[in-house]
Amino acid sequence: MIRGFGSDNFSGVLPEVFTALEEAAYGHQHSYGEDIHSKKAIEDFQAIFGQEIEVFFVYNGTGANVLSLSAFTRSHNAIICTETAHINVDECGAIEKQNGNKLLTVPSFDGKLNIGLIQNHMHNFGNQHHSQPKIISLSQCTELGTVYTREELKEICDYAHANGMYVHMDGARLANAIAHLGCAPKEITTDVGIDVLSFGGTKNGMMFGEAVLFFNTSFVTDVPYIRKQSMQLHSKTRFIAAQFSAVLKNNLWLKTASHANRMAQQLASEAAQIPGIRITQEVGGNEVFAIIPREKISLLQEACFFYTWDESASEVRWVCSFDTTENDILEFVHLLRQAIC
Amino acid sequence: MIRGFGSDNFSGVLPEVFTALEEAAYGHQHSYGEDIHSKKAIEDFQAIFGQEIEVFFVYNGTGANVLSLSAFTRSHNAIICTETAHINVDECGAIEKQNGNKLLTVPSFDGKLNIGLIQNHMHNFGNQHHSQPKIISLSQCTELGTVYTREELKEICDYAHANGMYVHMDGARLANAIAHLGCAPKEITTDVGIDVLSFGGTKNGMMFGEAVLFFNTSFVTDVPYIRKQSMQLHSKTRFIAAQFSAVLKNNLWLKTASHANRMAQQLASEAAQIPGIRITQEVGGNEVFAIIPREKISLLQEACFFYTWDESASEVRWVCSFDTTENDILEFVHLLRQAIC
Amino acid sequence: MIRGFGSDNFSGVLPEVFTALEEAAYGHQHSYGEDIHSKKAIEDFQAIFGQEIEVFFVYNGTGANVLSLSAFTRSHNAIICTETAHINVDECGAIEKQNGNKLLTVPSFDGKLNIGLIQNHMHNFGNQHHSQPKIISLSQCTELGTVYTREELKEICDYAHANGMYVHMDGARLANAIAHLGCAPKEITTDVGIDVLSFGGTKNGMMFGEAVLFFNTSFVTDVPYIRKQSMQLHSKTRFIAAQFSAVLKNNLWLKTASHANRMAQQLASEAAQIPGIRITQEVGGNEVFAIIPREKISLLQEACFFYTWDESASEVRWVCSFDTTENDILEFVHLLRQAIC
Amino acid sequence: MIRGFGSDNFSGVLPEVFTALEEAAYGHQHSYGEDIHSKKAIEDFQAIFGQEIEVFFVYNGTGANVLSLSAFTRSHNAIICTETAHINVDECGAIEKQNGNKLLTVPSFDGKLNIGLIQNHMHNFGNQHHSQPKIISLSQCTELGTVYTREELKEICDYAHANGMYVHMDGARLANAIAHLGCAPKEITTDVGIDVLSFGGTKNGMMFGEAVLFFNTSFVTDVPYIRKQSMQLHSKTRFIAAQFSAVLKNNLWLKTASHANRMAQQLASEAAQIPGIRITQEVGGNEVFAIIPREKISLLQEACFFYTWDESASEVRWVCSFDTTENDILEFVHLLRQAIC
Repeated sequence: MIRGFGSDNFSGVLPEVFTALEEAAYGHQHSYGEDIHSKKAIEDFQAIFGQEIEVFFVYNGTGANVLSLSAFTRSHNAIICTETAHINVDECGAIEKQNGNKLLTVPSFDGKLNIGLIQNHMHNFGNQHHSQPKIISLSQCTELGTVYTREELKEICDYAHANGMYVHMDGARLANAIAHLGCAPKEITTDVGIDVLSFGGTKNGMMFGEAVLFFNTSFVTDVPYIRKQSMQLHSKTRFIAAQFSAVLKNNLWLKTASHANRMAQQLASEAAQIPGIRITQEVGGNEVFAIIPREKISLLQEACFFYTWDESASEVRWVCSFDTTENDILEFVHLLRQAIC
Repeated sequence: MIRGFGSDNFSGVLPEVFTALEEAAYGHQHSYGEDIHSKKAIEDFQAIFGQEIEVFFVYNGTGANVLSLSAFTRSHNAIICTETAHINVDECGAIEKQNGNKLLTVPSFDGKLNIGLIQNHMHNFGNQHHSQPKIISLSQCTELGTVYTREELKEICDYAHANGMYVHMDGARLANAIAHLGCAPKEITTDVGIDVLSFGGTKNGMMFGEAVLFFNTSFVTDVPYIRKQSMQLHSKTRFIAAQFSAVLKNNLWLKTASHANRMAQQLASEAAQIPGIRITQEVGGNEVFAIIPREKISLLQEACFFYTWDESASEVRWVCSFDTTENDILEFVHLLRQAIC
Repeated sequence: MIRGFGSDNFSGVLPEVFTALEEAAYGHQHSYGEDIHSKKAIEDFQAIFGQEIEVFFVYNGTGANVLSLSAFTRSHNAIICTETAHINVDECGAIEKQNGNKLLTVPSFDGKLNIGLIQNHMHNFGNQHHSQPKIISLSQCTELGTVYTREELKEICDYAHANGMYVHMDGARLANAIAHLGCAPKEITTDVGIDVLSFGGTKNGMMFGEAVLFFNTSFVTDVPYIRKQSMQLHSKTRFIAAQFSAVLKNNLWLKTASHANRMAQQLASEAAQIPGIRITQEVGGNEVFAIIPREKISLLQEACFFYTWDESASEVRWVCSFDTTENDILEFVHLLRQAIC
Repeated sequence: MIRGFGSDNFSGVLPEVFTALEEAAYGHQHSYGEDIHSKKAIEDFQAIFGQEIEVFFVYNGTGANVLSLSAFTRSHNAIICTETAHINVDECGAIEKQNGNKLLTVPSFDGKLNIGLIQNHMHNFGNQHHSQPKIISLSQCTELGTVYTREELKEICDYAHANGMYVHMDGARLANAIAHLGCAPKEITTDVGIDVLSFGGTKNGMMFGEAVLFFNTSFVTDVPYIRKQSMQLHSKTRFIAAQFSAVLKNNLWLKTASHANRMAQQLASEAAQIPGIRITQEVGGNEVFAIIPREKISLLQEACFFYTWDESASEVRWVCSFDTTENDILEFVHLLRQAIC
């Protein structure tokens, strides 16, 4: 049976990641970040994003987002994001509970924020009755598989900073965005003015672990305590760090993302040719969104798992992974043809 | 250089754990607990603790404790524990922030609770001005390396239940306690009436991951949401589960604990013979507490790392691990003799 | 100078309220609710809403809403309400911080919820990644001055209960709604199935104080503690209670609301005749919403204060109070004519 | 029947307070602090404590303490206080829930902190596993009726500031302390270095309302939002402010406190002469603590209400109020003699 397209966290780990874990597996080292692998991985991140950044390892994406946002806010602050943002719909209200923040959401067809959308919530500053907007959170790639351009990001960051606000990037799939744009990692992060980044690991071939990268280090003093109190400090930190060093080495993280993107492109272009299927979003990263005949969905899911995205629209989501093969795509397209045509 | 005695989380992973991770490493599986390894590991726990228990995998011990306690409390409830409890002194206030609970602590020379100590806080029930005691949290082994007997535990549980309260066991080192007592796991948990258990993994040879075992399942309905909102739900859950199956298989977890305990016993008995060293706590598990000459501490720590426990008393803590060898003990005792005699 | 139309909390207190405070002012009584005035006021509420209700006095409307909602939810639950709900826009994120709840909002032209709107959020039940909808919060009158009919409320309550959910009514201006409908208080609260009510006092002539009325008493056991921990328990409770007895006596609360409503009706009908003014919402209670020429707003506000509601639409809000006089209306309409015609 | 000695919040309001409420009762004014009475009361506080202070009105003492402490801390900070502190035992865990702070308590026979006691918790700075001490909270008068001297306060403040920490004074009964010491209000607050003060109103003859006075204004920017989100912002603020102006006028607050203190002194000295009664604390303010024969307590409470303080020690608390009369004392002492002798 072929691999499904349920999510990039359905996949296992990269062989290189596994080898790195093996190398770190035995012997004693100090815990809680004072080990040689943590030191090395932080240097690896600094080599890519700049010496002046601060790096904090955490367990998962929700933890990374909460840590990122809580450094820049207090509970009476609000966070501006899209309705489809992971922090809004997929984290069971973690931001609200952990930080007490209000999420000010805007509808967005393609999952992207822009200044026009943000402006809907840029009021009531200084009014004690209203949660005060303090940070804009955007996802790159977005939850709809689209990718912000460098210019779009810069415009948002400039606008935020001009208004005394900050910008958080949820980069659970940042690698896919960079691979898509063919740019250097700094070009769409530090260079455009992102203040803090949730750097994804698990969705791109790691076993567990994410990193929070503070490009704006004004508020990092409290972060170690917030991380601990948020239950995101791993004792054997070396096992998160060693994985990151493995994926960062020789741009492995970008190669795997590039592969997943290519698979998604192929799937989208093949599927688009099937009558009755409509691709609904530009395919920027490793995700394909498509409207397919409602009555075929469960049958197809049984043969090859994927999630329904929007039941009312009969829209589904297909996610490619670092280990998705061309054969997986071909067989799945074959299944689609059989079922639909 | 020999292994230090800093903490059991300074060690790496058990070879069997590593093999299990390798077997789970590749291929696609559903995420968030709907994989075959999670199903298997839950069955493995049920085989030991009973079919009717509920098992939830989390990332770390602080997460396990918070999840355990939040299931049984609301923010106006209080938790009775010792002053030295991990939840009180080593989790950066996670309980207070996550749950809003007040910790009602009691001093305890040996790290154990008993009814006399608990009674200090058994008042003000029904008085709206006071946090209402709802759950007693004890650690087995305690943070001072001592071990509750079956009878001591039963007495506390009976007392709690007779007063409409519950009992949580922080079992970060439960394996060491069971190995010490030579009992079946059920005998000091379900049989005595423990309501919920933080089951340790990381300190006993796992790479990451702990489990929360609800023996009293009255309040588990909300637990999946609490776990997610507390950032403790791993997407690739199979990697926590597979490790647990590995350590539970053929009582590996008890064998490794037994070994660590034996090393601690040996260290304690050898060290006790050195003039100027006084062992301060009964050695129940894998930890040895000793008063040693103050002026020798830093020198010894440089040669072989361990933590100072109580600076004012010149008391240190030596923790043995699953991979501590008899040679480590001999060499360290040799160091002690050289330094002190 | 005439009274403005800024808010009903710009007014002072009713003479009957003041007399009641005077009667309660001197001598000693037990604090924290165990005084004769509290007993009496609870009986007064029970005489109106039924013997089986539970009444809790709090300081203000935000406190009443937080207490109401927290009794029925835990932090992973979501609350469905309109975008314009007071709990969403006017309480600085109190619900998010105090309860950790997510607010699932819907746009609503007239400030009312209905089943079609609610259904937008009725999904993802049982999915651990999503905040679980548990309670619907509606305002009667709405924040846009409109009033739900008995039938509209019953439909929402029936729908909620059929789906295992509850209904909270923010009744900061409940008196105005009852006066408008000319019904008995029970007809639009207990009779239709409202579970918990924030009963407004301050906006209708009290000095301070609101009440939370639980019609569904399944979850009240924890409420005294939640109230205290939420800083909403007044020591000299008699001073809230005595005011409530005063306003409940001989339907004073409904007479004052009726008067304010009549003033709003008169203002709306007179203003509607002025060319360039458009009344934008049906006037159900004591509030009038109107679009007026943008360039006249600040001039008018200086002469007679009121708030701009929606700057982009040039929409303003005029609120009448228990002490608004016919002369106030006539003079203000005169001002409007002078400024606009 | 004579007035009891249950608490100073069993009393009603001062006539001067009532008159002030009457003067503010009618007519329209802006809400939420933008009224003339709020402006006036802030000036009245500034006249006493200095022009550069910031004043925030809140509803009650718990609200005042939470607001004070949250301005200076984040959730990973700890607060050092005595075991008997109101914030520790009488607020149902409000600090833990609202702020997430850990309270680091010390036992204290007389309710006072001192540097020796504080030092028990002055460690683990910079260690991410431990809540970081940030503010010392002391009560003046203490909960045991004792009063810090100017020198004792200065020593604590100097120590706190030398260690990068702050000092909060819970001044629910500050007036009694000032009256006892016969000093100027500034001498034991701003002059000694207190950073923030909960200024009591309700226990000294007000109907409701307390004030938070920031002497250190470094962190006040967020305070208006914290107050609102903490449900402590009163819409008709004039009614808190007008009361404060009344009690601050002509030192009324100190005269009433002085009277209550004198009554307590008289009660203590008379009771001390009764065989079988032992006064347990120095009487600094308006509270008397005494050990009396256990078997007489309930009988006496029925005749004249007061609270048992420490059941195990048979210790009771008698609180005098602004309206306690010499006759009340004489009759109560008579009751005591009758019952005990």
